[in-house]
Amino acid sequence: MRNPLSEKVKGIQPSGIRKFFDIVSEMKDAISLGVGEPDFDTPWHIREEGIYSLERGRTFYTSNAGLKELKEEISNYQQRRFGLSYNPCGEIYVTVGGSEAIDGALRAMLDEGDEVILPQPSYVSYEPCIVLADGVPVIIELKEEDEFKLTKEQLEAAVTDKTKILILPFPNNPTGAIMTEEDLKGIAEVVLNHDLFVISDEIYSELTYGSRHVSIASFPGMKERTIVINGFSKSYAMTGWRLGYACGPELIISQMLKIHQFAIMCAPTTSQYAAVEALRNGDEDVENMRNAYDQRRRFLIKAIRDMGFSCFEPFGAFYLFPCIRQFGMSSDEFAETLLREEKLAVVPGTAFGNCGEGFLRISYAYSIEDLKGALERIERFIKHHKV
Amino acid sequence: MRNPLSEKVKGIQPSGIRKFFDIVSEMKDAISLGVGEPDFDTPWHIREEGIYSLERGRTFYTSNAGLKELKEEISNYQQRRFGLSYNPCGEIYVTVGGSEAIDGALRAMLDEGDEVILPQPSYVSYEPCIVLADGVPVIIELKEEDEFKLTKEQLEAAVTDKTKILILPFPNNPTGAIMTEEDLKGIAEVVLNHDLFVISDEIYSELTYGSRHVSIASFPGMKERTIVINGFSKSYAMTGWRLGYACGPELIISQMLKIHQFAIMCAPTTSQYAAVEALRNGDEDVENMRNAYDQRRRFLIKAIRDMGFSCFEPFGAFYLFPCIRQFGMSSDEFAETLLREEKLAVVPGTAFGNCGEGFLRISYAYSIEDLKGALERIERFIKHHKV
Repeated sequence: MRNPLSEKVKGIQPSGIRKFFDIVSEMKDAISLGVGEPDFDTPWHIREEGIYSLERGRTFYTSNAGLKELKEEISNYQQRRFGLSYNPCGEIYVTVGGSEAIDGALRAMLDEGDEVILPQPSYVSYEPCIVLADGVPVIIELKEEDEFKLTKEQLEAAVTDKTKILILPFPNNPTGAIMTEEDLKGIAEVVLNHDLFVISDEIYSELTYGSRHVSIASFPGMKERTIVINGFSKSYAMTGWRLGYACGPELIISQMLKIHQFAIMCAPTTSQYAAVEALRNGDEDVENMRNAYDQRRRFLIKAIRDMGFSCFEPFGAFYLFPCIRQFGMSSDEFAETLLREEKLAVVPGTAFGNCGEGFLRISYAYSIEDLKGALERIERFIKHHKV
Repeated sequence: MRNPLSEKVKGIQPSGIRKFFDIVSEMKDAISLGVGEPDFDTPWHIREEGIYSLERGRTFYTSNAGLKELKEEISNYQQRRFGLSYNPCGEIYVTVGGSEAIDGALRAMLDEGDEVILPQPSYVSYEPCIVLADGVPVIIELKEEDEFKLTKEQLEAAVTDKTKILILPFPNNPTGAIMTEEDLKGIAEVVLNHDLFVISDEIYSELTYGSRHVSIASFPGMKERTIVINGFSKSYAMTGWRLGYACGPELIISQMLKIHQFAIMCAPTTSQYAAVEALRNGDEDVENMRNAYDQRRRFLIKAIRDMGFSCFEPFGAFYLFPCIRQFGMSSDEFAETLLREEKLAVVPGTAFGNCGEGFLRISYAYSIEDLKGALERIERFIKHHKV
């Protein structure tokens, strides 16, 4: 039998995150600070709305782009939170999580050989989705000395005449870095100068600490060339509902919607009804969870630094990204040995790009109690491995 | 600003089905026999399981491939219904409806220029998904005189040295045609002779009338080269839950799963819990719905033939595909005029391929009462348009 597989797909590596969690799930007494997922259940009133929609028999397809009332609430939300004005009919559609929207944007916009500038460390899906859409990823290595921000100089240096898209992954997974209005201004200038498009993944936009998220789409001239991706997984603790959305110029959204229509049909109906409730009455939940994450963030960074780790202070998402170079182990070795010896799972920085070498991603979307237990294990571990 | 769009995507036409339903949704007193969706609510005990999972706070990601117990139930189901033996760990994964699985199979298997043989009339997603995956669709026109079956002679004639995949869409949407064991035997021979792969879309496998569905994967040597696609939308009236699955050789499934991991993450969690219940305790629901569809099918075909339409008797899915050539209108004209004059929506055959010209798709996933109302409108319409 001949080879059944696409060459392109064969060359893509599976996610470096999941490998660890297959081991963890089989290991007794293991603790994980690994998965990029809120530890909170979805707030009850949101679940209740999902339940109510099932009781009423709302088990049918919605229109391809999503429920009208959901698109309207998304439009209101983007306006009140980020000052962005999108027409619910044509400039917004509802997706299966942020993931589908990322994949859809790249598929809708890339022709073979188009270059996509991708700052790393960043979420594991961008690079394979670029390759799947026949694009060429051009990696920019974000640096701890720049607070893991993308600088306009880095961006300028990476642009070629084949560059079409910049992926802007802030607040960032795995570093927790954010980009301020001032930071984004410089990026927007370079984007406009070179007539680029931006896929701005703002899935962690509700999780910033001490400042409010700014979208690059809010700069003059940028809305027309930016696809804003957001969703319900992180801010409303709704990962399992698989619900996200994309906002952008109708010209691009209509093409993304066409792919969505054929490859997905529509996002899950129950989740859409629940999401309407989330946007209408969920602001307080978001704030409560943000406060809880912030408390854990401050607790964990102090503890980690007290142990002697050098660690950048993140102001977004729910991750720490401490440096582990002093232990004379690679990120992979460190994470594997920590899991084997102390039954504690974290993710090696290299899962998010080669430049993540020397770092670990530690999620603080866990209770303070769990974090304390984990810290004990880390403490014991580094005592044994002091260089 | 330069063109933001992929050339490939721009060339794809949006679905010819939806156009009508945007009109219908704005039209007072309109009746639709158009959407390809059961009219039944999801059975209560299945919804109840979804509700129960939400009450318990099962709102987190599942593993990429899906809940272990769901994959096990799918494996049991494929064994007891179709005699197919798939390992739940490696040969099955859970998708966002059958749609995602079709797209994923094509993405995982096609390199640029590979030919995919596509019998038409058939479901609207195949052709765009082939094009999106850089494949070349090679259309075979199914004929009413062959009962809209694919013949081995047609298949043999369409194979070239670039052919990689055959899409096998039976029971068929829109014609309702099925392929018997004997029919499939000839197809399997050609597939084996030319070392092809098969994507067998069996989403309507529970909806056959008078005979039991046979999967091409059950023929010797075929399981290794077939991706079987199925799901919960049609058989369990679960369209809005967006839940399907793919079964096949681990070599291919593992690559499809990689795409799924990056572009989708996992199927909706609530839907997965509900689907476990569907497979464990839903056989009677499936049988009751099948009996209802069969009653409507027999009612509608008699009525349509009595009005003077020539209509192939379908033994699968829930569609009639009557010929309307005698009215001197194209399918599009007929459907548009019917909608305008009688406020009745059906789908022109051309939505499913050019060879659907001269036919209409009429869904009988509607109550007998609704069907009677629709028939009155058709009767009035054809009285006015007799040639």
